[in-house]
Amino acid sequence: MNIKKVLQEKKIDIALFCTFDSDYYDKNQYYLSGYRGMGCLVVPRNKPSFLLVPEMEYERAKQDSKVRVMKWKKGKRLFDFLKEVLRKRRIRVKTLGISRVDMNLAVYRSLKKYIKGRVKDIALDCVRIRRIKSKEEIKILGKACSLTDKILQKCISRIRTFKTEKEVEQFLHVETIKQGCELAFKPIVASGKGASMPHYEAKNISLRKGFLVIDFGIKYKGYHADMTRTIYLGKPSQQEKKVYSLLLETQKKVIMDIKLGKRCTKSFEETVSLLGTYGKYFTHGLGHGIGLQIHEWPNLLPASKDSFENNMVFTVEPGIYVPGKFGMRIEDSIVMEKGRLRILTKTPKKLIVK
Amino acid sequence: MNIKKVLQEKKIDIALFCTFDSDYYDKNQYYLSGYRGMGCLVVPRNKPSFLLVPEMEYERAKQDSKVRVMKWKKGKRLFDFLKEVLRKRRIRVKTLGISRVDMNLAVYRSLKKYIKGRVKDIALDCVRIRRIKSKEEIKILGKACSLTDKILQKCISRIRTFKTEKEVEQFLHVETIKQGCELAFKPIVASGKGASMPHYEAKNISLRKGFLVIDFGIKYKGYHADMTRTIYLGKPSQQEKKVYSLLLETQKKVIMDIKLGKRCTKSFEETVSLLGTYGKYFTHGLGHGIGLQIHEWPNLLPASKDSFENNMVFTVEPGIYVPGKFGMRIEDSIVMEKGRLRILTKTPKKLIVK
Repeated sequence: MNIKKVLQEKKIDIALFCTFDSDYYDKNQYYLSGYRGMGCLVVPRNKPSFLLVPEMEYERAKQDSKVRVMKWKKGKRLFDFLKEVLRKRRIRVKTLGISRVDMNLAVYRSLKKYIKGRVKDIALDCVRIRRIKSKEEIKILGKACSLTDKILQKCISRIRTFKTEKEVEQFLHVETIKQGCELAFKPIVASGKGASMPHYEAKNISLRKGFLVIDFGIKYKGYHADMTRTIYLGKPSQQEKKVYSLLLETQKKVIMDIKLGKRCTKSFEETVSLLGTYGKYFTHGLGHGIGLQIHEWPNLLPASKDSFENNMVFTVEPGIYVPGKFGMRIEDSIVMEKGRLRILTKTPKKLIVK
Repeated sequence: MNIKKVLQEKKIDIALFCTFDSDYYDKNQYYLSGYRGMGCLVVPRNKPSFLLVPEMEYERAKQDSKVRVMKWKKGKRLFDFLKEVLRKRRIRVKTLGISRVDMNLAVYRSLKKYIKGRVKDIALDCVRIRRIKSKEEIKILGKACSLTDKILQKCISRIRTFKTEKEVEQFLHVETIKQGCELAFKPIVASGKGASMPHYEAKNISLRKGFLVIDFGIKYKGYHADMTRTIYLGKPSQQEKKVYSLLLETQKKVIMDIKLGKRCTKSFEETVSLLGTYGKYFTHGLGHGIGLQIHEWPNLLPASKDSFENNMVFTVEPGIYVPGKFGMRIEDSIVMEKGRLRILTKTPKKLIVK
């Protein structure tokens, strides 16, 4: 499936993807053009796509874009200019495709002033297209994961030099910047009973004894890596070692059992079952696709309708969270290629005791 | 002016400010409640405001919020739940206020399914309210500026230890994180003729001789600082020193001449006139308000209708950009209090030669 097919099937004349914010960019615009920044990508059903960008972004856009770039001059409203371009290129717009989650109401209002026609939402179609990665995307995600490995291993090796959870979080952030990258998300550094909250926020408190959960990933060229490791500070009891082993064996087994065409829910159910009496302490989804967003398709939730397909990249991240006591999670980013799985995050999973 | 008065004047029954994205938060929701994150702030015209947040954010929201917090449970649509709450509280909604630039189409669609009534845009009213800062906000902005000073001065003192523009940018970013803060924007580090582009992006190239422009600010508690200093690498010629002096004297004089009630355009015109033959090389606005966004009101652009008022915080940043040759800019963040100006960024402005 690709965007042109979506336009054909839905009888859409053009699709528009716009970025007007300096903090935020339209992921589909980037995906389809290679350009991140202010501007508007126009995808006509039967003609080549093109980008309209402000004058000050023109040089950069020409460098990055896979499609033709045109500049619109200040003083002219973008959508007024777009209307003119469409008329000159004899592109008639009866039906217009946009992604509703990616367009704010103010932009929509101003768009509708100039471009008439019926509007169809193609947000889900875009997510569906992006769930299958190209070779180039898989390569980038692989690089993002190996940089994530490198930083996390450095962090774990010096874990005893950090006093607080916040210090660990800052170390991960600083190392990410030193690699010329960004964080994929705010890292989770959860020690002691804090680890029993899956979305715990690192605090300015001393690292507590017990399991320490570190959930971390970098963003490289816009693509998100995601990995979690749980280590132990102090001396684990036999019981604690047993629970960790149970989680680790479960994660490995579930990954091994993922096959082409298997329903994602099946893997979720298998996880709960393998965790046995601890199954009830596994309180979130088994995983999610990764890519230009940290949560993409496929969904590895109980209600998911997705199946594993070739060139999907996703996480597998079972966890055990005993409220007020302890928590642990083991997460890898994985790609399915030619019916076989390849684990992209390679940091060892055997329980590390520090 | 405050939000309740806007609702009264525009005959709006409730205003809604929503955040549904983990990367992004509604600035007005934060401004009016103190809470940043997933949820929906409801501001009724005649009753106290309240927040609806998902269960997993409830504890944090209660800690941060100035208004009452209610949790909505999973399984129930937020706006369906909101409808129920409004009915129970006997709040009738004939007219609904939202900020169009801050709401995406998908959220709007789902809102309109449950909450009927006419919709009025209050985006500009919110910006207008936020242009006048409270004492607490001025204190936070002052802290953001003094942290920015500290980091920039450290950077300048060791400027000769950096090989590339990118290294300088990374240093600023890393120091910001070590302060537990975020960048207010991607720092501009422009050396040699690169400095002639006001929005130049730092490159992986050796720092070139000549003027070096560093435009940098940190974000503290959501509030943005903004400062630019231009230093010189190598030995400046008499002519170069003269041009820098002209810019510096202009910036000082323009700031000195800002008075309560003065039109912002006047200051812009004065700048161009003081720069004399270099006036034509001053190619951007004189400044902008700062706060929860990096660009707020007042506008110090030629077309601005704003005047200087008490408790506004804004930048004054004249520059000279001779294409392909050199560039320079000097920028301070300033507050107007009781008719007097106080400069919040204190890094020295005398030409530093390194």
